[in-house]
Amino acid sequence: MSSLVNRQIVLNAHPVGAPVDTDFALVEGPVPAPGDGELLVRTIYLSLDPYMRGRMNPGPSYAKGVDVGDVMTGQTVGQVVTSNHGGFAEGEFVLSANGWQEYAVSDGQGVRKLDPTVAPISTAVGVLGMPGMTAYVGLLDVGALKDGDRVVVSAASGAVGAVVGQIAKIKGCHVVGVAGAQKKCDYVTGELGFDACVSHYSDTLDEDLRAVCPDGIDLYFENVGGKVFEAVVPLLNDFARMPVCGRIANYNMTELPAGPNEVPKLMGLVLVRRLMIRGFIVFDHVARQPDFIRDVGGWIRSGELKYREDIVEGFENAVGAFQGLLRGENFGKLLVRVSDDSTRQE
Amino acid sequence: MSSLVNRQIVLNAHPVGAPVDTDFALVEGPVPAPGDGELLVRTIYLSLDPYMRGRMNPGPSYAKGVDVGDVMTGQTVGQVVTSNHGGFAEGEFVLSANGWQEYAVSDGQGVRKLDPTVAPISTAVGVLGMPGMTAYVGLLDVGALKDGDRVVVSAASGAVGAVVGQIAKIKGCHVVGVAGAQKKCDYVTGELGFDACVSHYSDTLDEDLRAVCPDGIDLYFENVGGKVFEAVVPLLNDFARMPVCGRIANYNMTELPAGPNEVPKLMGLVLVRRLMIRGFIVFDHVARQPDFIRDVGGWIRSGELKYREDIVEGFENAVGAFQGLLRGENFGKLLVRVSDDSTRQE
Repeated sequence: MSSLVNRQIVLNAHPVGAPVDTDFALVEGPVPAPGDGELLVRTIYLSLDPYMRGRMNPGPSYAKGVDVGDVMTGQTVGQVVTSNHGGFAEGEFVLSANGWQEYAVSDGQGVRKLDPTVAPISTAVGVLGMPGMTAYVGLLDVGALKDGDRVVVSAASGAVGAVVGQIAKIKGCHVVGVAGAQKKCDYVTGELGFDACVSHYSDTLDEDLRAVCPDGIDLYFENVGGKVFEAVVPLLNDFARMPVCGRIANYNMTELPAGPNEVPKLMGLVLVRRLMIRGFIVFDHVARQPDFIRDVGGWIRSGELKYREDIVEGFENAVGAFQGLLRGENFGKLLVRVSDDSTRQE
Repeated sequence: MSSLVNRQIVLNAHPVGAPVDTDFALVEGPVPAPGDGELLVRTIYLSLDPYMRGRMNPGPSYAKGVDVGDVMTGQTVGQVVTSNHGGFAEGEFVLSANGWQEYAVSDGQGVRKLDPTVAPISTAVGVLGMPGMTAYVGLLDVGALKDGDRVVVSAASGAVGAVVGQIAKIKGCHVVGVAGAQKKCDYVTGELGFDACVSHYSDTLDEDLRAVCPDGIDLYFENVGGKVFEAVVPLLNDFARMPVCGRIANYNMTELPAGPNEVPKLMGLVLVRRLMIRGFIVFDHVARQPDFIRDVGGWIRSGELKYREDIVEGFENAVGAFQGLLRGENFGKLLVRVSDDSTRQE
């Protein structure tokens, strides 16, 4: 075992703005040996998610950041190579947070077994994992979705947005997506069944959105910030709710936008229209996991809820894939296939 | 009756910025005669409230605005002069929305009788009226006050803020007020029992507030906007809640403040700290009126909750008093005594 190489991607520098290649470093070392009560896991899929950009910043946030020299954090789907742990057997598939590396040793804490006969193992970091649950609690609990709500979802073809919109459709709402490329918009309306989708690439985004929201917006699921947020706000109805899940368009921002300070205008609307804006993080809602698995798992089995994965081949391509994610280039839940997935029939 | 004069204050022009004298006009006409099923009411108290500034603007808002030439709207406490209405008798005291005028005819719709032996009739537009109930529902329902919350209240000596802070104290919270003049700060801590109060006149407001909020802020009751809001935001704890009741510092704003657009920064904090910002208007919470009357009425009788009125004598002084209200010059619930209150022992 110790003759094998373990490749890791570590933070080389805190990025200023968009992360560049030299903010990361690919390092090689020996595959670690599991001690008593430990297991060695080979990474099959590395999940790439927008929140990781925040972890690369210095300074305090809601979760511990990555220090320079540390392996980049992230959720992984893997297979047990060696186990000295009574709870895990060689060959079992597991969900863990091993980060951007090919192998990791674990004491089993926080490791969850995956049954490949129930759902594809990759879904444990996607539609049946953190992104799916983010959509579920954000829409239903934080956003308090109501019958007949007119819903707008940004990043609509993404890992979270696609689930948000489909749940809202299942609940009988009118759903408009915002996405980038035309193929994503087509997917959102054609495959996922949203009522409409507008592109944030359009020079007339404000008008485009207004045209497909003739009755305004009751719930905006905020994934992106930036100009989509600006286009949405004027259309919010009285008592509209805005669960704030992410602000990906702003993650690489190094200075505040020029122009007058619009906070008083936003807060004035909050008052007059009785808006509710609430940030949330899925980890604060773990108690809802059984409901999430029951509902979303059921909708997937019944075919009511679809999902799409964007799988990048090869660990060495993780940095480029992550950079593309922050530019909105992925199409579906972004994963890096780090090693072979023997469970997959394609 | 018809020989008596009815003075009215009407909107003469939509203000640009702070309302000036010529935005109002005092007009005189005959006292109207009540028809069948109607009653004539003499105004005793006119309530002056910050929301009235919004009603003076053209264009749609959550409530119908005042058109040029219309009598300014407002709640009034009055006495029935003549009644052709089976439900009301001459001499009875009533709460109604007769606006800025000395007399008004009503068909009885929305008129509520007041018993001067239960509470001073003036409280029907103050601590036991709309401002008190705004405090009650804003703090308990919209803000979801929790045990041990560290609460900050702006406009702390005002009609709403004073009730917010006292309820939070009754509920066992740590309460900091923000007010203007030193006498108001002294009143807030000395009379109302807040734990601390800082002045927004201070050049070091940010530092002053931080010093008295060493454990941050869990609930900010937003009455004022402006620099108080800016001082509060950085101190908000994870899961802090901000019921947005008013933005009085911004009501006269004619242009957005210079400087970069701070919306992305605010929304970034909303996400990372999982803040909840929610605007509300008391009229959306009428179902809570019985609870409000029971609780706040009880606290007043037990002496746990105090209130202060700022009574300006003479109808002709209403405009000046309202202008002062928007500058924060009132000290307690602002009322205009339009005519004699025979129930009052002073």
